Amino acid sequence: MRATPLLISVSILFLFPLRPAPAQEPVDDYHALVDRLLDVAMRDCDAFDFLQQLTVRAPRRLSGSSGAEEAIAFVRAQLVQNGFEPVVVESLLVPHWERGPVEEAVVKIPGREASVPLSVCALGGSIGTPLEGVEAELLEVQSFEELHALGESVRGKIVLLNRPMDPRVVSTFEAYGGAVDQRSRGAIEAAKVGAVAVLVRSVTLALDNVPHTGSLRYAEGVPRIPAAAISTVGADLLKRELQQAAGVRVWLRFSCRTLPDSWSGNVFGQITGAEFPDEIVVVGGHLDAWDKGSGAHDDGAGCAQAFEVLNILRKAGVTPKRTIRAVFFMNEENGNRGGPAYAAAPARAGERHIAALESDRGGFAPRGFYVEADSATLVAVRSWAPLFELLGAGLIKPGGSGVDIDPLVKSGVPGFGLLVDDHRYFDYHHSDNDTLDKVHPRELEMGAVLQALLCYIIAEQGISPFGKDSPDH
Amino acid sequence: MRATPLLISVSILFLFPLRPAPAQEPVDDYHALVDRLLDVAMRDCDAFDFLQQLTVRAPRRLSGSSGAEEAIAFVRAQLVQNGFEPVVVESLLVPHWERGPVEEAVVKIPGREASVPLSVCALGGSIGTPLEGVEAELLEVQSFEELHALGESVRGKIVLLNRPMDPRVVSTFEAYGGAVDQRSRGAIEAAKVGAVAVLVRSVTLALDNVPHTGSLRYAEGVPRIPAAAISTVGADLLKRELQQAAGVRVWLRFSCRTLPDSWSGNVFGQITGAEFPDEIVVVGGHLDAWDKGSGAHDDGAGCAQAFEVLNILRKAGVTPKRTIRAVFFMNEENGNRGGPAYAAAPARAGERHIAALESDRGGFAPRGFYVEADSATLVAVRSWAPLFELLGAGLIKPGGSGVDIDPLVKSGVPGFGLLVDDHRYFDYHHSDNDTLDKVHPRELEMGAVLQALLCYIIAEQGISPFGKDSPDH
Repeated sequence: MRATPLLISVSILFLFPLRPAPAQEPVDDYHALVDRLLDVAMRDCDAFDFLQQLTVRAPRRLSGSSGAEEAIAFVRAQLVQNGFEPVVVESLLVPHWERGPVEEAVVKIPGREASVPLSVCALGGSIGTPLEGVEAELLEVQSFEELHALGESVRGKIVLLNRPMDPRVVSTFEAYGGAVDQRSRGAIEAAKVGAVAVLVRSVTLALDNVPHTGSLRYAEGVPRIPAAAISTVGADLLKRELQQAAGVRVWLRFSCRTLPDSWSGNVFGQITGAEFPDEIVVVGGHLDAWDKGSGAHDDGAGCAQAFEVLNILRKAGVTPKRTIRAVFFMNEENGNRGGPAYAAAPARAGERHIAALESDRGGFAPRGFYVEADSATLVAVRSWAPLFELLGAGLIKPGGSGVDIDPLVKSGVPGFGLLVDDHRYFDYHHSDNDTLDKVHPRELEMGAVLQALLCYIIAEQGISPFGKDSPDH
Repeated sequence: MRATPLLISVSILFLFPLRPAPAQEPVDDYHALVDRLLDVAMRDCDAFDFLQQLTVRAPRRLSGSSGAEEAIAFVRAQLVQNGFEPVVVESLLVPHWERGPVEEAVVKIPGREASVPLSVCALGGSIGTPLEGVEAELLEVQSFEELHALGESVRGKIVLLNRPMDPRVVSTFEAYGGAVDQRSRGAIEAAKVGAVAVLVRSVTLALDNVPHTGSLRYAEGVPRIPAAAISTVGADLLKRELQQAAGVRVWLRFSCRTLPDSWSGNVFGQITGAEFPDEIVVVGGHLDAWDKGSGAHDDGAGCAQAFEVLNILRKAGVTPKRTIRAVFFMNEENGNRGGPAYAAAPARAGERHIAALESDRGGFAPRGFYVEADSATLVAVRSWAPLFELLGAGLIKPGGSGVDIDPLVKSGVPGFGLLVDDHRYFDYHHSDNDTLDKVHPRELEMGAVLQALLCYIIAEQGISPFGKDSPDH
């Protein structure tokens, strides 16, 4: 543990002023950088201020919306005002889906006069219902196997896909992965056997009355049917009613619709490398967010941290050899156009991306990094773990880096994903729960410090997809 | 990462039914236990239910209070009802300090007519003020060195000890340690130079209007003066006013008082070891809590987890070779009588304590364990880290275990302290912020699972203070 009262910390910095480090220097030389980053970061926790401004100005910023354009303008202005030039907006076409004003559902229980309202929200990309809504008998399944085994008896019904996230799985992302197929493929699989609509149990471990949205897919040749998320409380209610009586019916009405693609863009700014400006370390998050809550954790937090990486490196007075670029990707949530567009952009010929880092698992206390690279690179990154442990975040695991940087990674660029304490993430994810008050300023900032450290090390030392330090020209 | 959908998990348990493990067996054999503990624990998260009941029935349970006795009765009943016999209450005398109904403070600023109320609370153990209160000019210092350098100019004044916790220190417990001397020794040091009262900046990283209490000490031969915590917002307000004008005065009135010692007790219940019942692994927390909030994190969480360790081991159907005892210590906060009384109890002769574990850093996501033992034991415990990593908590660090088990540890028993994600802890600590809604059921439960695993391994394998597995007789 490193106790660093102010005076000692300052005197260390005077004794050992930071300078561009020679490649391959021992990791210990970065200890002073850790202290300096903590010094400039942890008193103000500026990342939280950025996040507050973003979520106040553009709480709803789904691709194609005016909020998304507002978010781009905000980020662009922040980058320019802080001198992280050149600041670039690279245009791209994005899907434009709108929820619209109407989202209604009720359950009609045999023998009861009053229908019971259900807390639902359309899944992103869903078609709307006819004006008069859709009403049909409800049928519950836990899996697609069960659905298809029911065969023709599904025809004309509304299907409730009600398999919960498994709370026994330690990684909530892994538990999410075990349930989210119901949301992404449910409309296709249910339509194949003749269902008229789909309700999907919200993919969350929380038991509350808040529906969690997310994208769905439709398939060529399969009828498109309306699909909505239902809160876990609502899903449990339906399960109970179905156990008690036959003929439970649900009525749904949604106004959502897909409009023609819109122009939008990826935004980026940078600290340009002093020696090798064309070698780029990307740190990013996605600027678009679902139109529920204000996308504070998903992924306002990642955007705020990407900005903060540049901010605290500059406040710390260090200029890396290579360029560190904060990229604010558009359209991760519904369409995933931003990442591929960034990776394929022809205008930036001459640049070489040497690493890419994304934070898109929420702004919680950092634990370390997922590394998506060859095993030699993994070994190299593990050798830096003692530094990350100074920030309480020395976990280095092979694993997926991030959706937005995936195209870069697929092209051979080593990828990194911020690992965080994820127990609470899916309580908020894609729902009205995902608001600023769920983000802790100190946890958010510590994640930015950790990312700044990784970016700086790579920008100084270089890193190659083959696990060798780059020859430094 | 261990993906364990229900069917696979169940079939593993059928193929490899758990049985008492032979000593020294490879750590891999415990993987099935991890799965089974997750299986019985994570669906219900019973620890949260225990905590809810405790904090509803006995939200205020400072030693000597009726709430403390209510807490003892609750825990005792829970242990008895669940068959964790023998259930024992070992009596001890505890300090009995009462806050009483009056806590008032205002600041009087020269040139302003209205005085400004300050959010304060007496420090535990403080004497009260005279009925008419205490009023004096205010003087601010950041350290005892500064205080003593002022010498006679302090006489007759109220001293504000206003050094903040250092937000740049990564471990919040370490940052706390760098500021808490103001609270624990402030009344002594200020009285030495003639101060009439002390206000201490709340030892928290949060900037809010909530004062955080905690214990103070007085010293023989030094006058006892009233001492109170002031919220960080209030402390910043006073700092600003003192910078702007001379003659800022504060008036304080407190009704707190110390009554004669009261009888109270430590409570414990256990799963008795099948082979070596007299060899004891202690898992504990402290049942007393400050009379602010409801002590949900400090240390209701540790108590709930200690109970849950027994609960989930029993639900998992395993009986360890050695006894696992959940101990609910009384009087950690103001006096520290419970731990020494437990360690010294003569009635339990014949027992041998082989390890002690305490959770008293809040019910947050677990990270691993502090180990307070010789280095060979540390190495042995580190060899179990891959198991703990299955729960996302493989960090093993040398460090202090816990106040309550410290007397056992000092007598040679290996000590363990649950390591958690601590960024938020001091936002709540010893204040009205420390309530149930700040505890996440899943994080709390995961901490219980981790502790159950450690206790079971030790109870099966044995552990000695010399780092060798015990010879198993």
